[in-house]
Amino acid sequence: MAKFMDVHTGFIGVTPQQLKEAHERDLAIEADEGVHFEHAWLDPDRGKAFCLAVGPSREAVMRVHERAGHPTAEVYELRVEV
Amino acid sequence: MAKFMDVHTGFIGVTPQQLKEAHERDLAIEADEGVHFEHAWLDPDRGKAFCLAVGPSREAVMRVHERAGHPTAEVYELRVEV
Repeated sequence: MAKFMDVHTGFIGVTPQQLKEAHERDLAIEADEGVHFEHAWLDPDRGKAFCLAVGPSREAVMRVHERAGHPTAEVYELRVEV
Repeated sequence: MAKFMDVHTGFIGVTPQQLKEAHERDLAIEADEGVHFEHAWLDPDRGKAFCLAVGPSREAVMRVHERAGHPTAEVYELRVEV
């Protein structure tokens, strides 16, 4: 399993409740792809969201987000961390 | 105190040791600005690094990174998380 950070843009003004609901849509289907989303953060003023996940591949992470209704092509494999 | 994610680009091929050294340069001076860098992740293939920090302001986070030799203007205040 690898670790991934994905980035979403355009989430300006998204509320805490909306982020929670979006995250729950990911959690509801993530097991289909062997993915687990550990954390999500949002800057509502700049519309940037970040999700930290573990899973088998970038493509698996992208498929979960796409099926959950918030696709992104910006998925980074975090091979190094400190 | 607020939470921040900052993003660095162009870190292609950076090694684990180099990321550790860069992170340690931040840690060595962060207290001057009331900032603490909690975590750093890197995708060396795409050259993207992400740092999670707590601190008083975006500007404080930027000043630490600038003084440590790896400035970035991409700093997001994470007012929402799940």
